[in-house]
Amino acid sequence: MLTLSLIGIGCGDPRQLTLAAISAINAADLILIPRKGTAKSDLAELRRTICAEALSNDRTRIAEFDLPVRDAGEEDYRRGVDDWHDAVAATWSQEIARHLGGEGRVALLIWGDPSLYDSSLRIARRLDPLPSIEVIPGITSIQALCAAHALPLNEIGEPFLVTTGRRLREGGWPSGVNTVVVMLDGGAAFQTLDPAGLRIWWGAYLGMADQIIMAGELAEVGPRIVAARREARERHGWIMDCYILKRQS
Amino acid sequence: MLTLSLIGIGCGDPRQLTLAAISAINAADLILIPRKGTAKSDLAELRRTICAEALSNDRTRIAEFDLPVRDAGEEDYRRGVDDWHDAVAATWSQEIARHLGGEGRVALLIWGDPSLYDSSLRIARRLDPLPSIEVIPGITSIQALCAAHALPLNEIGEPFLVTTGRRLREGGWPSGVNTVVVMLDGGAAFQTLDPAGLRIWWGAYLGMADQIIMAGELAEVGPRIVAARREARERHGWIMDCYILKRQS
Repeated sequence: MLTLSLIGIGCGDPRQLTLAAISAINAADLILIPRKGTAKSDLAELRRTICAEALSNDRTRIAEFDLPVRDAGEEDYRRGVDDWHDAVAATWSQEIARHLGGEGRVALLIWGDPSLYDSSLRIARRLDPLPSIEVIPGITSIQALCAAHALPLNEIGEPFLVTTGRRLREGGWPSGVNTVVVMLDGGAAFQTLDPAGLRIWWGAYLGMADQIIMAGELAEVGPRIVAARREARERHGWIMDCYILKRQS
Repeated sequence: MLTLSLIGIGCGDPRQLTLAAISAINAADLILIPRKGTAKSDLAELRRTICAEALSNDRTRIAEFDLPVRDAGEEDYRRGVDDWHDAVAATWSQEIARHLGGEGRVALLIWGDPSLYDSSLRIARRLDPLPSIEVIPGITSIQALCAAHALPLNEIGEPFLVTTGRRLREGGWPSGVNTVVVMLDGGAAFQTLDPAGLRIWWGAYLGMADQIIMAGELAEVGPRIVAARREARERHGWIMDCYILKRQS
């Protein structure tokens, strides 16, 4: 019997680990740490740090492995993702077979929460044989963003939409909501909106030592965020950010 | 100088506490625990349990206090909430003055995450004098629901809406999304939707010993959830639940 534990580790600050996550880390026979070449954005170093701080079970093995590269040349986005998930599942299976065999507990440390804009649950369902799957929730960058700004995410009794940079760029301001959370935005898609009446709460490297936050009227703060974002990405070699937009209702 | 620490404690399982939450609990000079008469839904007992398990600083005082009752007779919902927030802020101020004076660190243990459908941040801004506010994120019931079902919340690259039972009942299926999270639903509002093509993932008392989860086609599972919900509410005297609906895209 094989159990796969997808453990949410929060978004950078090891103090965001829950007690349940620490238990699950220590219950694992094998922890797999993915690497993307030498890219800092693979967060392998953060996962090593978390293991070093949280792991007290000396029978738990840690194995690093190289993630397959997604075929950027595939024109069909969904098929590209699909093929990549297959390839990652095959790699997980190989690593599990090599280090653990067919029995035991294998853990993956998931950035943020396994349920939110993360592929691990979908990849896990492609494993053969199918393991028993356990999910440990973790603090997301949305929560770290709200905490850093001491911002209530929703207005009283009101809905909010969580969407992607691409969607915001293609579809403009979504109908029916005055609060929008934007994730996975590589290109500051807020620039495509009419900023009148909009406020933004932005953050990058949330929860990390390099955390940057900015907030204010989009018309005024937007261009400063674009500049800060470009400068930070150049300095660090990567950036991970998200933001909340609110429209006066 | 007064600091108010709003500490997300997760939704019932003390193992959902983060290391940052435990640090903040132990850094507090005073922890305020609200009570709503004898109602079990005030979760005072859960907060006592968390203090008993997480608190190792014997200089931290714990003070319980009775929350003001919201005027259910107020016809204007927003004004009713507004008046109630003022009354709660006045009570917090009294308790802080009584137990702590004008200086130190006071903490409130917030169910879930302080940014999500919680009034504490809004109430805190009404305190006089205004304290410095610190927010510690906590695991939400949405995350516990997804974890219990091993469910990815969003579809790949797709948005999702978080809304309330009242909104769903009044507005029907929201436009532009195929995934909807429903919170604060006292009356199983999913019953007002045409169930064709809809799936539901439901959970009550998430993270607690009494956790119940159910999932499936809304047409089939919906009536069973309504019955399970009624039975559980009668047995426990209260219920807290939420659910995710997905429409075939």
